[in-house]
Amino acid sequence: MHKVLITTVPFGQRDRKPIEILESLSVEYEINRLGKKLNENQLKSMIKDSTILIAGTEPITRDVMESATNLKLISRIGIGLDNVDLRAADDMGIKVSYTPDAPAPAVSELTIGLMISLMRSIQIANLNMHKGNWNRFFGKGFSDITIGIIGVGRIGRRVVNHLSGFECKKILINDLSVIDDLDLKSQVEWTDKKTIYKESDLISLHLPLNEKTHDLIGSNEIKMMKKNAMLVNTSRGGIINENDLYDSLKDGRISSAAIDVFEMEPYDGNLSTLENCLITSHMGSMTEDCRARMEIEATEEAARYIKGEELELTVPLEEYGQ
Amino acid sequence: MHKVLITTVPFGQRDRKPIEILESLSVEYEINRLGKKLNENQLKSMIKDSTILIAGTEPITRDVMESATNLKLISRIGIGLDNVDLRAADDMGIKVSYTPDAPAPAVSELTIGLMISLMRSIQIANLNMHKGNWNRFFGKGFSDITIGIIGVGRIGRRVVNHLSGFECKKILINDLSVIDDLDLKSQVEWTDKKTIYKESDLISLHLPLNEKTHDLIGSNEIKMMKKNAMLVNTSRGGIINENDLYDSLKDGRISSAAIDVFEMEPYDGNLSTLENCLITSHMGSMTEDCRARMEIEATEEAARYIKGEELELTVPLEEYGQ
Repeated sequence: MHKVLITTVPFGQRDRKPIEILESLSVEYEINRLGKKLNENQLKSMIKDSTILIAGTEPITRDVMESATNLKLISRIGIGLDNVDLRAADDMGIKVSYTPDAPAPAVSELTIGLMISLMRSIQIANLNMHKGNWNRFFGKGFSDITIGIIGVGRIGRRVVNHLSGFECKKILINDLSVIDDLDLKSQVEWTDKKTIYKESDLISLHLPLNEKTHDLIGSNEIKMMKKNAMLVNTSRGGIINENDLYDSLKDGRISSAAIDVFEMEPYDGNLSTLENCLITSHMGSMTEDCRARMEIEATEEAARYIKGEELELTVPLEEYGQ
Repeated sequence: MHKVLITTVPFGQRDRKPIEILESLSVEYEINRLGKKLNENQLKSMIKDSTILIAGTEPITRDVMESATNLKLISRIGIGLDNVDLRAADDMGIKVSYTPDAPAPAVSELTIGLMISLMRSIQIANLNMHKGNWNRFFGKGFSDITIGIIGVGRIGRRVVNHLSGFECKKILINDLSVIDDLDLKSQVEWTDKKTIYKESDLISLHLPLNEKTHDLIGSNEIKMMKKNAMLVNTSRGGIINENDLYDSLKDGRISSAAIDVFEMEPYDGNLSTLENCLITSHMGSMTEDCRARMEIEATEEAARYIKGEELELTVPLEEYGQ
């Protein structure tokens, strides 16, 4: 009998359909009883003889897989694969699936919200008002600023399309490699990263975390940016060096940042001591609809495996090369 | 010689052009030396023998105008006219101009920012993170919710157009009277206010404050709303009854609100004690570009009057009927 371990939490809470799918199969299943993101050791002790892992962003290392001798399928809820050692999985014949499309709308909408919050100091005004201080903050409008989008995959191109509803001054875009088939609703200008760092008033990152993107933005890149630059990251934590970001925000080398993702989560670092750093708790995919879709898609993939059907969401080979 | 009193603050701070315009004319001018919004008595004592008032949102009552015996022109920085007794101005032959187009982009963009902040609990997550608490909040996406827009004039229709960049489930609209010439980029459904109160998950107000709109939203209207409804007001304070809103938010009769405008400003009321009320300090028009444009337009109008040229921004007659 299959044993399914679900490590991501919450799971099946707002929409019970994933639970119903599991209960319709003759399987044992267990939902992460610690109720929080697991570290490697916690995962190793919990995964034991599971055959299927419905996974979040916890570290699924070679070591974890070696300890899970019955593991046949990792079905990731979400799009990022930085937490899964894909080569180890391949070596051990463990299949890996993911849900790359479901999170995109929720992440791209949060990104626009964070952008405008920074541009207009919404969260700072709110904090002031709740302390009884009436301070009016000057802000920027979309027609005042050059926006730089690094990464125009599933999420970045949605952000660009959202911006088509506004009158933007200029949108610069770039990615890890040249993308030809962009069909965007906004007028954009493809340029190199250096130009984006130098010319943008607001930079937003929409990249996977891998060897090429780890610490992509550090003090050298921040030094190139405008003094009033705003930085948004809703992709993965390791892409911006957090210590360099802290120093830059503290010293006013750039204006502000909105950070939803962190190198270590749950995050408890010193960015939270800075008023000019808007911080949210990896909530990019946390809309009811998007979360439900991800959970259902990942559970349906597990059900396919259990019933011996063909998998539909396996990670494409090019992801293994990174 | 003309004496110009500028009551709105800040003025000429980010862009010196309005100051330069005044200095190129042979006039005396004074900028509000109290540095904050004036009440009626403060305005009366400051306005004395001024011939031109470049005005903010302070109360320009019949009493004020009667005490300002030389006053010839009120040039309002902004669009709202609720603070100007237009009939009194008409009776005394005082001309009134305004800058109705300049604030629209800044207000409509802030509105979208406030919407997404509420939908995703951005400001609450930020507050939690700054206290060291990692809580992930479930939110709503645009494809999950019905949006009700009341008021589709200069600002409301821009909000609707911004929404065209998102995949919205449904947009309901209404106004004080039927508007035929709407040319909107989003698909919308014209309906009555009651339907908007009952069916919307998020309601945003874009109305002038006048006899018809004062206390438009009170406990009766809120009772019709969904338990999870979100309310956004970036237009004028008196349109939502603040006591009723406070009670409703406190008792959880609706989910949350984002309020930028208040019956009395600077605001120091009890909405600021509620976590589910996002509050900003009348910052709708506070982008650098928009603010500069409003100040320049209002000052140019004053310059036209001083040079004996035809005015270009006089308030249309229909506004006087309200």
